[in-house]
Amino acid sequence: MAQSKPDIPPLKDLTIDNITENVIRINSQCRDTRLKYVLERLVSHMHDFARETRLSTQEWHAGIQFLTEVGKKCTDVRQEFILLSDTLGLSLLVDSIDHPKPPSSTEGTVLGPYHTHDAKSEHLGHSISADPDGTPLLVLCTVRTTSGAPIPNVKIDVWETDSKGAYDVQYESYSGDNPDGRAVLRSDEEGLFWFKAIVPVPYSIPDDGPVGVMLRRLGRHPWRPSHMHFMFEKEGFDHLITALYLRGDPYETSDAVFGVKESLIVDLGTVTPEQAKEYDIKEGSKLLKYNFVLVTDEETKILKDNEALKAMKALGREDLKIIEGLPVPDVD
Amino acid sequence: MAQSKPDIPPLKDLTIDNITENVIRINSQCRDTRLKYVLERLVSHMHDFARETRLSTQEWHAGIQFLTEVGKKCTDVRQEFILLSDTLGLSLLVDSIDHPKPPSSTEGTVLGPYHTHDAKSEHLGHSISADPDGTPLLVLCTVRTTSGAPIPNVKIDVWETDSKGAYDVQYESYSGDNPDGRAVLRSDEEGLFWFKAIVPVPYSIPDDGPVGVMLRRLGRHPWRPSHMHFMFEKEGFDHLITALYLRGDPYETSDAVFGVKESLIVDLGTVTPEQAKEYDIKEGSKLLKYNFVLVTDEETKILKDNEALKAMKALGREDLKIIEGLPVPDVD
Repeated sequence: MAQSKPDIPPLKDLTIDNITENVIRINSQCRDTRLKYVLERLVSHMHDFARETRLSTQEWHAGIQFLTEVGKKCTDVRQEFILLSDTLGLSLLVDSIDHPKPPSSTEGTVLGPYHTHDAKSEHLGHSISADPDGTPLLVLCTVRTTSGAPIPNVKIDVWETDSKGAYDVQYESYSGDNPDGRAVLRSDEEGLFWFKAIVPVPYSIPDDGPVGVMLRRLGRHPWRPSHMHFMFEKEGFDHLITALYLRGDPYETSDAVFGVKESLIVDLGTVTPEQAKEYDIKEGSKLLKYNFVLVTDEETKILKDNEALKAMKALGREDLKIIEGLPVPDVD
Repeated sequence: MAQSKPDIPPLKDLTIDNITENVIRINSQCRDTRLKYVLERLVSHMHDFARETRLSTQEWHAGIQFLTEVGKKCTDVRQEFILLSDTLGLSLLVDSIDHPKPPSSTEGTVLGPYHTHDAKSEHLGHSISADPDGTPLLVLCTVRTTSGAPIPNVKIDVWETDSKGAYDVQYESYSGDNPDGRAVLRSDEEGLFWFKAIVPVPYSIPDDGPVGVMLRRLGRHPWRPSHMHFMFEKEGFDHLITALYLRGDPYETSDAVFGVKESLIVDLGTVTPEQAKEYDIKEGSKLLKYNFVLVTDEETKILKDNEALKAMKALGREDLKIIEGLPVPDVD
């Protein structure tokens, strides 16, 4: 039972009024200056939350119990903490902070808990859905820079539910080796990519766990409007996580995870006889067309640094440096 | 797949700047006005935390992963979320808010994750520890009101570690039917209670889980100074959760969970020949004497309401009512 007396300020007689500064002081032994700053803000907000609500021991217990249940609900294919973050708007906020977009580019939105690394690389034109009950859809897209140049060889992850609103990972039979409703594609030399899919449907986020209980207590529904997820990766460009939504969906303005943006809402068209022949799909099938615009890492860096500096100024914290877009205390 | 279009404000195009008010608006459908207020402050602080740190997607992922691991570490006999709350000072803060103490009374401190409901009711004089390696200790206490009147028949929970710093629930062999180092006692007609125990030793909080990883990354040690826990329950009096600490402990001023208060530090004495005979313990054994002072529910209510009103005024939130010591929005 080795014991040592560390060299830290004396912590005794801590009260409602002085505990926060003392916890921050002891945490300031941390050598990772970014982590130290994140913990400083975390402790400060957590304590202010308790002080402002006059949080009772009973409520604190209920909170501990809730978080424990959220943790217990997590499995390899279900991430209840992401669901919690999504339903409290944190996920969309973090995406907006981390991936600022200039006006001419495609906006990002929530990743959600259903992206996997199980999708297989497929050729353009691949049919990603095996669901015979889905309404056939041809997806025809371009990927370009903010100045309109095509971007070839972009890695594009796409994923959607089946016609009943379930992702493959939600199937009892899911093993990781049998992905469905998802694929990884590459844009061609002209920045084009296309694939066959099914028309997305609205679905309920899993509400048989603690997050579902929370939504019911808050009087909220668990529905997401019909959408298809897209994720774009290409060296030199900012990672884009986004989704396209169908106009007129009953949940278009009440997405349980706050993901809908006007610029991401699409009207479906109809496949023409020429397209039917070219893409080997039934004439009259539904058609989704979209032009995605990626932002370079450089453009993103300038935007992020500016936003971070503005936020730090607003906080009165100008004794900070921005390193890789993230504020850290200036320890010089 | 029943779908309904709920009557809520349109949520679309949410940004860094407007998402917080919109999440609060949709949560305001909650009919429990207290929960609504708690969620309003929670969402507000969580979002401000992300904005002020410019939290990156990678850091958010690390946070989700950390919380998931904390949840996975929880069992019937290990509560990693309480440990997290303890080590970030939240537990002590909540106790201070929920159980304000007038100057003449015994201060409270952290409950910790080791209280159980397995302890048996024992007669005064009972020896709570079966550990043959512990240093024998006689504990002689009184329980009184703030005006000095003895309080009989108070239910007193006491618990401590063995001589190696382990609680019974940490033993492999622990089943719930074989408690050790803990008991439930009742004060006598004169407000006295006494029992035999062993001299407390410092111990490390369990640091083989994610909270241990966090402490190491923060450059903090996981030690708690030697202490014995006490919990007092009696109708008409505010529940008192406290502990007594030994003066001169190497961790007296660096408790990993911020629990030490000067008024709770004791100097051990020595059992006299008369005491040895009266309490059936070896002469020269260590002696812990303490006079506990409980606060009535009424005194506590007045203190809590005043503190809550002051805090609400400081927040500029005077449109709130204080119900059972807890602020709720005034919905009249």
